[in-house]
This record gives sequence, C-alpha cells and structure tokens, in this order.
Amino acid sequence: MSERFSFTLLANDGAARRGRLSTPHGLVETPAFMPVGTQATVKAMLPEHVRETGADVVLGNVYHLMLRPGAERVDRLGGLHRFMNWPHTILTDSGGFQVMSLAALRKLDADGVTFKSHIDGSMHRLTPERSIEIQGLLGSDIQMQLDECVRLPASRDEIARGMRLSLDWAERSRTAFEGFGGPEAGRALFGIVQGGDDLALREESATALSAMPFEGYSIGGLAVGEPQQVMFDVTAATTAFLPTEKPRYLMGVGTPDDLVGSVARGVDMFDCVMPTRAGRHGVAYTRFGKLNLKNARHAEQIAPLDPEGPTEISRSYSRAYLHHLIRAGEMLGATLLTWNNIAYYQALMRRLRTAIEEGRFDDEAAVIREGWVRGDVVSS
Amino acid sequence: MSERFSFTLLANDGAARRGRLSTPHGLVETPAFMPVGTQATVKAMLPEHVRETGADVVLGNVYHLMLRPGAERVDRLGGLHRFMNWPHTILTDSGGFQVMSLAALRKLDADGVTFKSHIDGSMHRLTPERSIEIQGLLGSDIQMQLDECVRLPASRDEIARGMRLSLDWAERSRTAFEGFGGPEAGRALFGIVQGGDDLALREESATALSAMPFEGYSIGGLAVGEPQQVMFDVTAATTAFLPTEKPRYLMGVGTPDDLVGSVARGVDMFDCVMPTRAGRHGVAYTRFGKLNLKNARHAEQIAPLDPEGPTEISRSYSRAYLHHLIRAGEMLGATLLTWNNIAYYQALMRRLRTAIEEGRFDDEAAVIREGWVRGDVVSS
Ligand SMILES: [Zn+2]
Ligand SMILES: [Zn+2]
Repeated sequence: MSERFSFTLLANDGAARRGRLSTPHGLVETPAFMPVGTQATVKAMLPEHVRETGADVVLGNVYHLMLRPGAERVDRLGGLHRFMNWPHTILTDSGGFQVMSLAALRKLDADGVTFKSHIDGSMHRLTPERSIEIQGLLGSDIQMQLDECVRLPASRDEIARGMRLSLDWAERSRTAFEGFGGPEAGRALFGIVQGGDDLALREESATALSAMPFEGYSIGGLAVGEPQQVMFDVTAATTAFLPTEKPRYLMGVGTPDDLVGSVARGVDMFDCVMPTRAGRHGVAYTRFGKLNLKNARHAEQIAPLDPEGPTEISRSYSRAYLHHLIRAGEMLGATLLTWNNIAYYQALMRRLRTAIEEGRFDDEAAVIREGWVRGDVVSS
Repeated sequence: MSERFSFTLLANDGAARRGRLSTPHGLVETPAFMPVGTQATVKAMLPEHVRETGADVVLGNVYHLMLRPGAERVDRLGGLHRFMNWPHTILTDSGGFQVMSLAALRKLDADGVTFKSHIDGSMHRLTPERSIEIQGLLGSDIQMQLDECVRLPASRDEIARGMRLSLDWAERSRTAFEGFGGPEAGRALFGIVQGGDDLALREESATALSAMPFEGYSIGGLAVGEPQQVMFDVTAATTAFLPTEKPRYLMGVGTPDDLVGSVARGVDMFDCVMPTRAGRHGVAYTRFGKLNLKNARHAEQIAPLDPEGPTEISRSYSRAYLHHLIRAGEMLGATLLTWNNIAYYQALMRRLRTAIEEGRFDDEAAVIREGWVRGDVVSS
C-alpha cells in the first residue's frame, strides 16, 4: 500500500509497447484493459471473479460515485478499494465526460460545470479542484484531470477553445492534486489530450501537456462515433508527441479490433463498457468474433462458447443454456456472458503483451484478426 | 449415476427426523432445504456457488420448463442436470400449482388441465401422464404427481372433491411413472396429500396415498396464506398418517421459523422462493432475523451482514456496500444477498440435523429463535 506510482517500459515492437505500472495497490501489466465499474461494481460480476480473469485495474466513474453513494461517504467507509472489495489498482475518470452525456442539465463556464443529477434532480458543481478532491476521497490510484470533450461535429474554433480550456484545467488539476497530497500518497494524475480530429490541435495539446509534470497521458475525445481509421490516425499522431517514458491511456476504447490497432500505435491502457454491456445484452466475444446468443440458431447447440475459451465459464456452459437464460431474462445469463467477455478481453491483452515481448506483434495481430474473420467454430 | 432412490432414517428426536436420501445424482441429507431453480437457474447464482452453500438438491418447475425451453429440447440437450450444470439431485414439481397461479387462462377437467402460456399465449395441456412424461424427459430424480390444489377459502365439498381428484391422479401418475421407466432409472415419485385445513380429509388423503407404492409423500395445499399455527396443525396431523420409512416434503415452505416448526412436526424436505426472492429485493436472512438493506440506517454501516455468517459473502461485504448496490439497482446486490440467504438456510438445516442427531432439537430450536428475537448485532 506504500508503493509510489511508476511506469517501466519493458519492451518495444514497432510502436507497440510492453510495460508495467506500479501503484499503491499493485502492479498493472500493459497493454492493459480496464473493466468498467461505474457504480463501484463491474456489473453482474463479483470482484474476485473480475480479478481471476486477469484484470489488474478497474475504472470507477466520478460522476456516478459523487451522486451515489457520495465521495465523502466512501471516504468515511475507508475508501473505494475497501468499499467495493477490490484491493487492486483503481483508476477514476474526472466526471466531466459523463456530466456532458448523462446529466439532465449542465452549464459550463471557464471555472467548471454546474449540473443536475439524473438520479434525483439535485444540483451539483464540478470544478477541476473538486474533481481531484473527489478522486482523492475515493482513494483512486490513477486520477484524471477534468477536461472538456467538445461534441463533434464542431468548428475548429470550438474544438480549439475546448482543448485550450482543458489545458488550463490541466494546470489547475495538477495544483489541486499536489495540494490534496496525491504525490505523497504515491498516486498518479494523468493529463488529457484533446483536439478532436485536428492533428495540429492534438499536437498543440500533447506538447503543452508533456511540459507539465503528469505521471501519464490520456487521449480523450475519441471513440465518440468517428470512423476507426480517424481514431487510429489521431491516436498515432498524438502518441508521437507524448513522452515515451510515460503511460498512454486511450479513453473509452473499444472493440477487440480497436485494441489491437491502438496497441500497434503505442497505447498502453484502455477502458470500455463494451464487454460488460454486450454481456448483459446476450452478446459474447470470442476468438471467432462476436456471437449473439439470443439468435435462435443457438437454441440447441450443446457446444460451449469456445471449447478453448479463456475461462471455465466459456468452456462449461452450452450455448443452448446461455440462449435460454438470455431469452428468459435470467441474471445468470448476464453474469456468464460478462464473465466470458472480460476474460476474453484479458486473454487478448495477455496475448498482445507476450507477442510484443517476443518481437512478433504484427504476426500475432494478423493471426488474431484471421480468427475473427474465419468466424464461428460451431456450424449453424 | 446408477444409485436407486432410497431413504434411510438415521435418528429421531421427538417427531423430528434426521435422514438421508440417496438418488441417481447423489445423497441428500435431511431435513433438507431445496433452493428453487424455476427456469433452470437458481436466480442470480452460479450453480457451483449454490452447491458451496451446502445444497444437495434444487427444485425445477415443470410449468416454466415445459414452456421454455421445452421438455423435449432439454431431453435432446442431455437432460436438466447437464443443461443447468447441476450434477446433483433435482426435484421437480408437477406443474399443476403454477398452471393455477400463473397461466393466463386454464380449464380443469377430470382428465387434466388446459391452459394458456403466460409467455406467448400458446395453448398447452397437462395431464397426470404428460406431467410424468415431462419430468422424465427433464431427468428429474424426485418427481411429483399432478394434483389439484383447491384455492382457499373453499367449501368442504370443494376441498374434498379436489382431494379425491388428486387421489385419482396419484394412481394415474404412478402408472405413468412405471410406464416411462422411472423405477428402472432409480427415480422417485411422490404422492401429494391434499385436504385443505380439514384434518379428516387430510387423514383420508394420507391414508389412501400410503397404500400406494410411492417413494415419498408431499404435503400440498399449505403455505397459501393460512396462519402459521394452521399450517403446523395440518402438518402434524398429516405426518401422523404417513409411513415413517418414507420421506415427507412440505411444499412451498417457508420462513426459517416455519422450517424449525415443521421439522419439529416430522417434515424432511422443504422448498421456498423466499430466500432467493428476498435477496433480489434487498432483504437478508441472518441469525439475528431479517435485515432490510434498503433501509437508510445501513448506509454507513461498515459491519458485514454477520461477522460469523455462513459464507465468506456474509462476512466480507459491508452493509453500506450492499445498501448502495440495492439502491443503485446493481445485479451484484441481488447476487450477494441471495447467496447469503441460501447459505443461511443451509446452515440452519445443518444445525437442525446435528441437533436431532444429538437429541437436543428442542433446545437448539429455542436458541435459534432467541437469536431472531434478540435482533441485529449492529447498533443502528
Ligand atoms: Zn467504449
Ligand atoms: Zn414459499
């Protein structure tokens, strides 16, 4: 519990990186995928089972947690790790993104944002300082600066304005982080690169943030509906301007294919609700691509999701049973598919890490993509 | 998988009995509580975790399973044990009770009952023979005759009519069970005692069924809203007319207090949705009685449900966290409370079994009841 945050780059293979984070709550092997635990739980999963899939870190959402149960309450209860029985690393977002996407009303000014809770209509205020204070109360190991993610499409001026406001908030966040004792607690604060799909603005943002003493850098404002190639191009252009000795986190990404392509472009960390949300909606991620278990073709398939799947769960329940559970609206269906999906994502990241270590990332990526294209093992 | 059904009475303590069932899928220590797995899943739980609580047997519902996924489909998929990953004993009901309580429309005649599915409105027919056929297709170890459970209040004549129709169906069920190879497969068929709250009718029913070659006897038509003392009186009067060498199953019962009182009156087996349903609604069963985790008084309680609770789950999650999960509508709340509740019920049955073996059932029952009366350990 006393280790200070650090990042060690262990190997390179092209732009792909194999690294290791050390945090007050343990090691995080990178490239890493972080399951999302929005309301202090990775939905439908027990924390020990999340850990068993190989996850070293989960993400908590400031927006949700500040509204319920409240940051001060979590602090009185001993912090988020203890509250949610997750003794490993926790990363938190700043709350800004979800204020813009979920709050009933919000009003942004240069100092922060005022918004109305989607739960009970109460009014709240989030500033760079308050976001850092909340993340400190939660006890987050890896914290994010508050930023403004301008909704696309937007004019270049509007994107530039949001990016420059985010730079101002980056400085204020850093000052607050130091004021609240973040460095002494061994915690990390990441600056967030903005700039939309404008490569010059991304360069300006990345360069300015690189001059500030952040422990790592996030790439924000992507995975908001743009074509995959745009995301890849912006990511590659951004990582090129970030210091090699600091970790890079691509926020809210993505599909397995997005992950492989972004690791190839120098990203170390990812989070996405996709594996958990898909699991609750009857969709399984496998070596052979996505399977929709609601589909009638699975109704009498005695085969499991994948006889060589990444967890006992993937290997021991028939597709027919999963189909039945999903159709019948049984929670166990959501649990089993979420479990498979998180395990699949973790297995994918392990595979990428090993391939980078062994200098064969491109070959491994090709083999992985081939599996997705080849499709399902079980004839329909 | 080749053991024939048998029941061994190991000890008596007053009317309370300690026994052991042997079935094609293992041993069942009695008195036993059977978690309900209506749609081929004990809601919100993995089957291996149900097993870990100490459950030797779960219950499946013919009404639900015949409608979805269908008995013939389950048979093609290798039977219910394999379908739901529960390699231990399974007991099924006959479907009759739920046809009367859940089906959109139903028409009873002397031969059987025709009803409309609550899922898709399709028409179905259940007869004593078809119910046994379905239970055989599912591969149920312990099967129930189709019976008619007359809804109270009803006239004595109406109760008598339903009881006698159930006797007729008992004979037809037995014939069907033998025709479908139940005895050769080592399975059991239980006759069901009816007769409402009329002790003379209960005696007539129990006596007539005792003369038929059933492997065990169920007490039906109770736990339908009558006062606890009526249930106890009818149960005591019924078990008095049942053969001592056969197991007795009190259907749909009940609260922990119902279980203790019914074991005292000679019952060996129970099932009830209470621990699972309560878990999904934020209620925990403990040594100290029921706790409603939705209640605001738990919002900052760092104490677990019970520091000496029957499972790691009961001991390692704070009440504050459970309160949060339930308030936030998170599935994990339902899973953790269901788990605690099933584990509590199983621990209670273990405690009763040991007490009977040691000839101190009444003392143990008194200590158990004292805990419920004393109430919560954590001050509010
Ligand atoms: Zn995402
Ligand atoms: Zn019940």
